Amino acid sequence: MYKSEQLAVSLKHLIETGTWKPHEKLPSLRQQVEISGFSLITVMNAYQELEAQGLIYSKEKLGYFIAENPIQAALAKKVILNEKIEINSLVFRYLKSIQSESTIPLGSAFPNSQLLYSPKLMQTLGLQAKHRISYEQMPSLPPGNYELRKLIAQRYCMQGIPTDPSDIVITSGGLDALNLSLKAMTQAGDYILLQETIFYGAWQAAENLGLKVITIPEHPEYGLDLEAFKKAVTTYPIKVCLLMLNSHNPIGFTVKEEIKFELAKLLHQHEIYLIEDDVYEELYFDQKKPLSMKYYDQKNLILHCSSFSKTLGAGFRVGWVYAGKFSEHIQHLQLMSTLSVNSFIQNALVDYLSHRHYEKHLKTLRKTLKRLKNLYYQYLLKELPDTCTIHYYPSGYFLWITLPEHIDSSLIYQHMLEQNVSIAPGALFYRTNKTPHHIRINCSFELNNDTQNALNQLIQYIKKL
Amino acid sequence: MYKSEQLAVSLKHLIETGTWKPHEKLPSLRQQVEISGFSLITVMNAYQELEAQGLIYSKEKLGYFIAENPIQAALAKKVILNEKIEINSLVFRYLKSIQSESTIPLGSAFPNSQLLYSPKLMQTLGLQAKHRISYEQMPSLPPGNYELRKLIAQRYCMQGIPTDPSDIVITSGGLDALNLSLKAMTQAGDYILLQETIFYGAWQAAENLGLKVITIPEHPEYGLDLEAFKKAVTTYPIKVCLLMLNSHNPIGFTVKEEIKFELAKLLHQHEIYLIEDDVYEELYFDQKKPLSMKYYDQKNLILHCSSFSKTLGAGFRVGWVYAGKFSEHIQHLQLMSTLSVNSFIQNALVDYLSHRHYEKHLKTLRKTLKRLKNLYYQYLLKELPDTCTIHYYPSGYFLWITLPEHIDSSLIYQHMLEQNVSIAPGALFYRTNKTPHHIRINCSFELNNDTQNALNQLIQYIKKL
Repeated sequence: MYKSEQLAVSLKHLIETGTWKPHEKLPSLRQQVEISGFSLITVMNAYQELEAQGLIYSKEKLGYFIAENPIQAALAKKVILNEKIEINSLVFRYLKSIQSESTIPLGSAFPNSQLLYSPKLMQTLGLQAKHRISYEQMPSLPPGNYELRKLIAQRYCMQGIPTDPSDIVITSGGLDALNLSLKAMTQAGDYILLQETIFYGAWQAAENLGLKVITIPEHPEYGLDLEAFKKAVTTYPIKVCLLMLNSHNPIGFTVKEEIKFELAKLLHQHEIYLIEDDVYEELYFDQKKPLSMKYYDQKNLILHCSSFSKTLGAGFRVGWVYAGKFSEHIQHLQLMSTLSVNSFIQNALVDYLSHRHYEKHLKTLRKTLKRLKNLYYQYLLKELPDTCTIHYYPSGYFLWITLPEHIDSSLIYQHMLEQNVSIAPGALFYRTNKTPHHIRINCSFELNNDTQNALNQLIQYIKKL
Repeated sequence: MYKSEQLAVSLKHLIETGTWKPHEKLPSLRQQVEISGFSLITVMNAYQELEAQGLIYSKEKLGYFIAENPIQAALAKKVILNEKIEINSLVFRYLKSIQSESTIPLGSAFPNSQLLYSPKLMQTLGLQAKHRISYEQMPSLPPGNYELRKLIAQRYCMQGIPTDPSDIVITSGGLDALNLSLKAMTQAGDYILLQETIFYGAWQAAENLGLKVITIPEHPEYGLDLEAFKKAVTTYPIKVCLLMLNSHNPIGFTVKEEIKFELAKLLHQHEIYLIEDDVYEELYFDQKKPLSMKYYDQKNLILHCSSFSKTLGAGFRVGWVYAGKFSEHIQHLQLMSTLSVNSFIQNALVDYLSHRHYEKHLKTLRKTLKRLKNLYYQYLLKELPDTCTIHYYPSGYFLWITLPEHIDSSLIYQHMLEQNVSIAPGALFYRTNKTPHHIRINCSFELNNDTQNALNQLIQYIKKL
């Protein structure tokens, strides 16, 4: 054991036994050096270790303090400071490996593009192409096509979220929206909070910007663990949270309204920004569209990111962010990166959305996804061994499967790829010291011979392991 | 005078009088402290001041040395270290101000979109829209559509630059290509070299990435000042140069082949990377397309960025970078930002380029731009006072005008905007302590009553000033 670890363990004892009380100040680094006889480096390392465990927290220039609730050490341990983020090369290899046309894309993040095919949109695009006017409107500079922003704003208003076109910035897809938002709100070294299991794009964005990432675990029942959230925001100086609360990728849950309401209260109380990744917002199976956190936002602390990628096609690269007061900053960043978004597609979307074709398309899409997801779920439920848990939620097109803890899903990913079938291994979605024992299945492809064979191969291999 | 300045002046004297010879080592900081009696901070500041003036240079761990050619102090002074970059808000205000449809866009950076209108491309887009297949190919992940990369690679090959599709990465326009390249090659704090007068996007990219910018002045005859370049690369630890050598924006010059050849030699000798911004490469008026620096690149040190924005329309947002060995790194960055480029437009471009429609379109475009630029030039030459210099070069669609030194072109910009005419003020393109006394005029709009009136108003106001 290093000296610093030794010191950390003994200090932890003082905390866990209640000798040191919540919010009590720890001895300063210098005092601790004198008391312990250890070097400054050793003391610093020990304090940082305790901080990483959530037992103490630091205030700039004031020193270290005992955390609010250090006795719930189990919980504290779940709130993890992820020192070094390095997911990108894994994601890169993964995305490269599943691109082959001959691969059955059960690992794809994108919905089956055949389901997204909208004849009306293509007709609109075709008509556009005949009109010279579409050329004369080029390019559309940030914040993007006014009419399109108006139509998007209307959709927020219809959910009871007052929105002006000036709140909306059109982006090159949803990932661009996330990145621009995070960049506008943070500086390298800032603390952000992510869900433990989350779309890898969020990890990449954090890596890209040099942010410190705190994670909180999913709540097994509610999706979002409010206690862990509270713990995290009282322990670390978190500036921004980036969360998926509707049709969460990869798990699939949608957080209940009561929890969202409580979350909004906490955000307001601690004055923490939230970037809500809501790209699956339209893919609900029930009657009512889930509310976005923006609904509860009284203090303009929330940026809401979405796109047309999951409903009309990721190839269009059109997304947006409800940027509110960050609109100008985000436009600045666009002028330094992509400049603007394809104006041709924006024009076509204006026509398409204003004729309400989108609503009809979404209705059909939801129905088909519901049917397919149920088919896959029933099939897997019947065939997979009982030691696997299939997480089914009524939205989206992902099934998240928990395998027995000893099974490394990366092995499954490798094995299946050799059979020309892709699946998404858990390692893409979380950092962990344990074996990544989850897989994500894309259920948006018809359950025909090919896909059924693919599923069977997967099931056989899991049984074998 | 501060102590450090005082010390700098006296040391400078030793250099200028030749007491200290080129490449001679200066006393170490510690020795200088002992000799001078000044504090370490004072000595450091003095040395840094001399370094900023190009009189001395530092080598890591070895100390400071007299520059190669300190006697050419005049030249040394021209190589400027730009400590703080802050151009973005100016550009933002500028771009916002010229967006109004009622404004005569002589200040626009984009060519008249009516000239870019290509019926064949629109026909192709229209046909695309009829085919479901275009949906099924979505999205096209980095490095972008293979067929499109193949066609772009062919264009390089036709100029004698051996290129594989795998060298090319499709980007969301030329600015995205520049940014991704610069990001792949640098880290915050690195030194990059820019031309003193350059497209503001380059400054923004540098600002965005926290780079230290060294500038060299334009050569009045050759465009690129090789002596200043040599000075800069021997004085500063420059990692990457970002240069425009063909149809330079805003000035318009194209650097001669002999100079490019010499520049390539220097890059190789000093192992410095070059990002070549070549978005105007197709807009030459003479018979022969100017060579890109890539032609001279034996060591794979050069990234070449271009796009379809200046020839088919900036609204399409399709550019590319000849990324060579940086291809994978750049794709990583794309996966963290825009993910991919509109696949619909990429598909259409494949069809369009493979039928050689592009060549015909470019031929007509060049002819029209040549005619218009000559018209504007002749008109301004006749009407502008002799105290103004109009820089005419046979390519592109910009005229760069040098006004008498006392005239602040920002005033002209403001005044003209009130008359619903935009012009691009010099301040967008360079940092200077002098009055920015240049303007850039976009000559791609027909010289009709409106544009002629606009020019007349401009001429009258300049005469008045």
